[in-house]
Amino acid sequence: MSEKLPVIAILGGTGDLGTGLARRWAQAGYQVIIGSRTQDKAEAAAADLQKIMAERGVKNVSVRAADNLAAAQAADIVAMTVPFSHQKSTLESVKDALQGKILIDVTVPLVPPKVARVQLPAEGSAGQIAQALLGENVKVVSAFQNVAAHHLQEGKGLDCDVLVCGDSKDARAEVIKLVEAAGMRGFHAGSIANAAAVEAMTSVLIFINKQYDCHAGIRLTGIEE
Amino acid sequence: MSEKLPVIAILGGTGDLGTGLARRWAQAGYQVIIGSRTQDKAEAAAADLQKIMAERGVKNVSVRAADNLAAAQAADIVAMTVPFSHQKSTLESVKDALQGKILIDVTVPLVPPKVARVQLPAEGSAGQIAQALLGENVKVVSAFQNVAAHHLQEGKGLDCDVLVCGDSKDARAEVIKLVEAAGMRGFHAGSIANAAAVEAMTSVLIFINKQYDCHAGIRLTGIEE
Repeated sequence: MSEKLPVIAILGGTGDLGTGLARRWAQAGYQVIIGSRTQDKAEAAAADLQKIMAERGVKNVSVRAADNLAAAQAADIVAMTVPFSHQKSTLESVKDALQGKILIDVTVPLVPPKVARVQLPAEGSAGQIAQALLGENVKVVSAFQNVAAHHLQEGKGLDCDVLVCGDSKDARAEVIKLVEAAGMRGFHAGSIANAAAVEAMTSVLIFINKQYDCHAGIRLTGIEE
Repeated sequence: MSEKLPVIAILGGTGDLGTGLARRWAQAGYQVIIGSRTQDKAEAAAADLQKIMAERGVKNVSVRAADNLAAAQAADIVAMTVPFSHQKSTLESVKDALQGKILIDVTVPLVPPKVARVQLPAEGSAGQIAQALLGENVKVVSAFQNVAAHHLQEGKGLDCDVLVCGDSKDARAEVIKLVEAAGMRGFHAGSIANAAAVEAMTSVLIFINKQYDCHAGIRLTGIEE
């Protein structure tokens, strides 16, 4: 790649969604750092991913491992795919490292056991919680909350759009580039308050998946690319 | 029609969305009552609609007018398309008439002037406000919040799905029939708490319409009908 691409860290990146994004971004030429609470766990996930990509003949990709703090420090753009119950503690542990950067918050405020029921936090949305906690020098952009990890697997369709919310239009535009690099359409969807709509939709999709035995996603209609 | 279809009232049904639904349901063979705060206003809207349908050669349709209370009393299923600021007062005025019936709440909790910003009520959603106000003998089902009136106009595509939320599965199924009668796909989307997702999505769509100069809707993907 002749263009200098940002280095991306994925905090809590050892799950299906995190590693799915990691692979897609790595294949698109980005340097990706998988972060976890411990270096060991991150290394295991990165090794698994490298093995899968090697088996499929994917070459010249950069995926490395680090603990969440080191990952956040080393990256230009930081994504976070952790359960809602770990959102605040994870953000607090990397707050300083995120200053001046974009945080892509993928947190969905599910409240087990009723994960198919919308139960938004008093703050409005997980995205707003992140923005308030990190302060105005971090550009929080919420995205990917409706993307089932299933859809990121090799050979599965990505028939799902990504609604990108955040108070900075420039930061949203940067994230839309990453959405497209991952093989989906991304759209400006308004301020970080609007993350509530997308986060809540995840519970609706969980309900629909159960009701109709499917892997549902949403797409925008009536819009030209 | 050999089957006895329910009579449908549309409270606050004089606007573009209400008359759009009225026309589609009337054309599908339902008896429709357009309700408004005054009989005069309802009659004007019904007369306009009858004229449009006559001009287009639509025959044997039943659209009549009444004030909101009389409309609610005469109907089997009651839909309500009023601004959020009128939701509670309208419901209070027809509460007794709704007992034992299905209320289709189309209320979107927009807070002007920032209608493109999600600002859900403390109760969670307008749907939950309606259910709490009306009590458990009214089956509140929220639907149609993401359908732009634009899409109901003749000759326009209805490239938009309807997510149907409510605590009664049977009532949701009744409403899904009405969604289909209006020419769209309807899906079970969970309890009335899940109306929050759909209501909030309307603000996102308003933002997207402005940002991309379009009339956006949403469709589910990955689901077989």
